[in-house]
Amino acid sequence: MNTRLIKLSEWMKENDIQFCFVSSPENVFYLSGFLSDPHERLLGIAVFQEEEPFLVCPALDKTDAKNAGWNNQVISYTDIENPWEFIHKEIDKRLKKVERIAVEKEHMNVERYEVLSQMFNGVQFISAEEKLRKLRMVKDEKELNIIREACALADFAIETGCAEIKEGKTELEVLAAVELALKKKGVREMSFSTMVLTGANGASPHGNPGMTKIKKGDLVLFDLGVIVDGYCSDITRTVAYGDIDDKQKEIYDTVLKAQLAAVEACKPGVSCSEIDLTARNIIAGAGYGEYFPHRLGHGLGISVHEFPSLTETNPLLLEEGMVFTIEPGIYVPNVAGVRIEDDLAVTANGVEILTKFPKELQIIK
Amino acid sequence: MNTRLIKLSEWMKENDIQFCFVSSPENVFYLSGFLSDPHERLLGIAVFQEEEPFLVCPALDKTDAKNAGWNNQVISYTDIENPWEFIHKEIDKRLKKVERIAVEKEHMNVERYEVLSQMFNGVQFISAEEKLRKLRMVKDEKELNIIREACALADFAIETGCAEIKEGKTELEVLAAVELALKKKGVREMSFSTMVLTGANGASPHGNPGMTKIKKGDLVLFDLGVIVDGYCSDITRTVAYGDIDDKQKEIYDTVLKAQLAAVEACKPGVSCSEIDLTARNIIAGAGYGEYFPHRLGHGLGISVHEFPSLTETNPLLLEEGMVFTIEPGIYVPNVAGVRIEDDLAVTANGVEILTKFPKELQIIK
Repeated sequence: MNTRLIKLSEWMKENDIQFCFVSSPENVFYLSGFLSDPHERLLGIAVFQEEEPFLVCPALDKTDAKNAGWNNQVISYTDIENPWEFIHKEIDKRLKKVERIAVEKEHMNVERYEVLSQMFNGVQFISAEEKLRKLRMVKDEKELNIIREACALADFAIETGCAEIKEGKTELEVLAAVELALKKKGVREMSFSTMVLTGANGASPHGNPGMTKIKKGDLVLFDLGVIVDGYCSDITRTVAYGDIDDKQKEIYDTVLKAQLAAVEACKPGVSCSEIDLTARNIIAGAGYGEYFPHRLGHGLGISVHEFPSLTETNPLLLEEGMVFTIEPGIYVPNVAGVRIEDDLAVTANGVEILTKFPKELQIIK
Repeated sequence: MNTRLIKLSEWMKENDIQFCFVSSPENVFYLSGFLSDPHERLLGIAVFQEEEPFLVCPALDKTDAKNAGWNNQVISYTDIENPWEFIHKEIDKRLKKVERIAVEKEHMNVERYEVLSQMFNGVQFISAEEKLRKLRMVKDEKELNIIREACALADFAIETGCAEIKEGKTELEVLAAVELALKKKGVREMSFSTMVLTGANGASPHGNPGMTKIKKGDLVLFDLGVIVDGYCSDITRTVAYGDIDDKQKEIYDTVLKAQLAAVEACKPGVSCSEIDLTARNIIAGAGYGEYFPHRLGHGLGISVHEFPSLTETNPLLLEEGMVFTIEPGIYVPNVAGVRIEDDLAVTANGVEILTKFPKELQIIK
């Protein structure tokens, strides 16, 4: 068993959990090195206190799972077989009695929960998520190096995007050019659907890029991320195409001030809420509080949204090795949408800013 | 209420269900026209037998939901509010007693299930999925038109991909060129991660495109789909770059024969299993049975994998308006991977083939 599986087993012993079934693709990857989206099919890792863990996967993934480095047992099934029968059999081989099962309560669906409930009548279900999140929340040096690489590619993407901005180009054209440049560098997948938004679209915090054409005097908002070896980056930059008006500038400056102050506030021992409020108070103080309707940031790693969550109510204290975004935004309908987002890693004394594209307002001529 | 909501309400009356909570983004879109991925946030539609339905969404999506055409009540919440409190209040306004709740058991997670279980002590949970799948499985003319458009773009993508094949180009380069061409046509999103696989990679049924270079004598497998207005297409073509050997040809011909026979067999009243077996028996008869490890096809619509499922055990009968893929494949490690996939719509007497790129072996010179 690898270190991560051992840590999970130790937690199971402490909490008197005989069997843990981990089935989210992200946590399966974290524990096994095997990254796969099984769609509606079942993929999971069964972990025990002492006995050998096993991985369950569709038949067509078996070789890939082994190639990814999973050295323990693999149980595979075809589309006409019921994987739960195999799972039941393997558990029976290992355990005499199952009283407490840990599952990912935010990932496991009700149907699978009912199957397990019937399989082990009267069993108690414990959430495995908090433990897995805590394990994943603090990155090791190997993970940090991968994320650094993903962030460098995100910087490159913004740089490419800025160079592509021209009068009359559509959001989607700029977006495609950015992704083409990334794919030429070997990038296979983005962290999420790339956003290139201009004009009124930029003023929606989750707008969709389309055929809107870029024109002088517009702000152009890029929000994108790159996946490298299963780890995500996530950057936002808002740039000006030609001269923008004073109101747009004021909004930009407010967001930038909030972003810089929040980054500055990060170090071990400071709470997530304190970081959020550092930015939020600056934006509210400038009169834009109602136009900043989302949290300040989110953890980042195998998932593009993971722990910690930087909200104004989260008491969690920052810890060395945590990686998250800081991304204040102001969205005033029909006036301007500005968001500036960096990825950061908490160090012993402060933070390392992983995304390095300039944050001073870039004016594209 | 729109027709779809009315049909769901009718089903609720027949089954004595007082409250139905639909929370998968696909079904929310189906019922409301609002397409959004809320990530870990809660998005859902509460449906009742007679009372006004309401949509719950994050604050930053409220305007988009209304713009998408949802004319009933919207309950929105910020990241620091608990949406379940609002939901509870709204239900209390509408209902005196809740005894049976329908949820999507394959989508709803255990955590939310526990919240609802505590909110309505002793309540019985019914699966809403079968009903929603049945509603979604048979497409109306408006949906078919959108899927036709998505399929035409998939054809265009294969055509583009073939034109991009050149000695020494990497899988990812070809892939990026295909997606760039699509984005120039206004395509915002693919149905799934585009696959361009060559050489040994093509022999893995779910390989990943990378930096492998295309060379003469290789097969190149494209598997891709395009999303148009929330509906997916899904096509696979395998083409030859230069001359391929007799074994590769034999494998190609076997897959093609199986694919054509299965398509030919489709019409209302024929079972999914019969269609699957039509192809499977041809492949097995040619001695490649063990190299075809997946089902013949899957339904297609708002999800890239939906009902019906074409497996050798599914007794479901085809019905006019159903849309699905037929995609037999043979994957012989280090020899060849071939898959040919079309999207089809069942008509009154047979099928309409929605993807039209040629299936006879294309040899790229």
